[in-house]
Amino acid sequence: MVVETPVKPYFAHAQALVETEDVGVGTRIWAFAHVLPGARIGSACNICDHAFIETGAVLGNNITVKNGVAIWQGVTVEDNVFLGPNCVLTNDPNPRAYIKKSGEALATTLIRANATVGANATILCGVTIGRYAFIGAGAVVLKTVPDFALMVGNPARQVGWMCRCARRLPLPAPAKLFASATCAQCQSQFVATATGLTMIEA
Amino acid sequence: MVVETPVKPYFAHAQALVETEDVGVGTRIWAFAHVLPGARIGSACNICDHAFIETGAVLGNNITVKNGVAIWQGVTVEDNVFLGPNCVLTNDPNPRAYIKKSGEALATTLIRANATVGANATILCGVTIGRYAFIGAGAVVLKTVPDFALMVGNPARQVGWMCRCARRLPLPAPAKLFASATCAQCQSQFVATATGLTMIEA
Amino acid sequence: MVVETPVKPYFAHAQALVETEDVGVGTRIWAFAHVLPGARIGSACNICDHAFIETGAVLGNNITVKNGVAIWQGVTVEDNVFLGPNCVLTNDPNPRAYIKKSGEALATTLIRANATVGANATILCGVTIGRYAFIGAGAVVLKTVPDFALMVGNPARQVGWMCRCARRLPLPAPAKLFASATCAQCQSQFVATATGLTMIEA
Repeated sequence: MVVETPVKPYFAHAQALVETEDVGVGTRIWAFAHVLPGARIGSACNICDHAFIETGAVLGNNITVKNGVAIWQGVTVEDNVFLGPNCVLTNDPNPRAYIKKSGEALATTLIRANATVGANATILCGVTIGRYAFIGAGAVVLKTVPDFALMVGNPARQVGWMCRCARRLPLPAPAKLFASATCAQCQSQFVATATGLTMIEA
Repeated sequence: MVVETPVKPYFAHAQALVETEDVGVGTRIWAFAHVLPGARIGSACNICDHAFIETGAVLGNNITVKNGVAIWQGVTVEDNVFLGPNCVLTNDPNPRAYIKKSGEALATTLIRANATVGANATILCGVTIGRYAFIGAGAVVLKTVPDFALMVGNPARQVGWMCRCARRLPLPAPAKLFASATCAQCQSQFVATATGLTMIEA
Repeated sequence: MVVETPVKPYFAHAQALVETEDVGVGTRIWAFAHVLPGARIGSACNICDHAFIETGAVLGNNITVKNGVAIWQGVTVEDNVFLGPNCVLTNDPNPRAYIKKSGEALATTLIRANATVGANATILCGVTIGRYAFIGAGAVVLKTVPDFALMVGNPARQVGWMCRCARRLPLPAPAKLFASATCAQCQSQFVATATGLTMIEA
């Protein structure tokens, strides 16, 4: 009889702590990162040093979690999101150490597919970061962000729009409904809609 | 003869480093956290992953230290304080790598009981954060903060007042001396004093 | 025959990971810090807990890297620099998780000798931080900073000048070419030049 040790489909550094069973193929988890039981991580993610993924956090595929980022219960991160170094997420809008909260009492946060959260940015809970939105380094985001929006400052305000190729678009913000723009770098075309911009498929 | 190994009254994760003898009953210290010799930590605290508590730091009871927070020599944290993820404290107001300082040359910081320091906020040294003060996420606090004050922005400015129950109070800031307010959520009553607000005991 | 184990000329904590051969004499690397293969670190540096030094990063001598700081490929840090706790550097000006970059596609950052980067400050890539410049806590630096400049805010703006002794100089910013100042603390003398201030050697 041969007993085979199952080979994990992902890589974990010898100094990483991975306590969940739910990590996808090809994901890499680096030193001093800690993934708690029940956290869900998709395939081909890169979870860098000193990251922390809490029970109840949900990550899709191809996500980059740079160093020092913590992802809490109540946070959902869709595919292809970039979370820059030391950016900070939250799940309690008004924390007090002496008021314990769990489950429904915590706020949820959704970071939609292909978005970028810049280095050392802060995202308050209860918001949605739109698809392909680009949160600048050090921005403090207090409310929901449209698709493709470029946000900077404290508090973060929208200063423009960012193409999927990460070139800024020649379109002011806010944009009038049905305003259109073409990316000078990749020639993608966009039209302004109620939820931000929409890419026009050729 | 039976030699008993003394049971520690607190919990430390197998990957935590705890070098002090001075940790209170029921405190939990999590993975990759590092507590240095001589640091003082009270009871029922929650010291999360990647936290760092330096020799000379003093923490009271029931304190939450979220991930990635470092508490330095010269910093005193009173009971029931919440220190949000990646918030940053300091103890040298004008650091230069080539000017070594210790002891009296460093500034002290006092975070008074029941205060909240939000996620990714920065607290300059030499200040006092008042009781029940609420430092918003990403705020950069340069000076002493009154009791119950709500502070946001970079530099942080006071935009209002926060109840002990973490509901914002219906009172503008600054408040006139002896101005009063009642919390819409928990009905606590307050009157403005020289150091901020004072709760009126029923 | 006696085989000697070579003694490393630097100190590494038992919980530090040091994978480079290139660390100078007297440097100290603390717990849960991670230095990757090929990173270059000079002598007498202090690399604190939870720091991360990536392959390709170059550090000079006598540098203080406080807790939680990551130094990336493309970043050069000259002698005597202070990098405050949780300050954040970058090497991709417009990251997207689905656009992989390496080598030339990344931007370089230069932090010149004797500069200070304050606690929780953010430095965008592609900039130079001048000699003796002083980046205030929480500042978000978007562009190149002159020698001796004092920068604060988000985005960071220059509000004055800082002496090598870390006393603020009695000179407004911007300064007229050839404007001069004397430090009230150490009596160093300065004259304004095209790249910031220059100290006048006695």
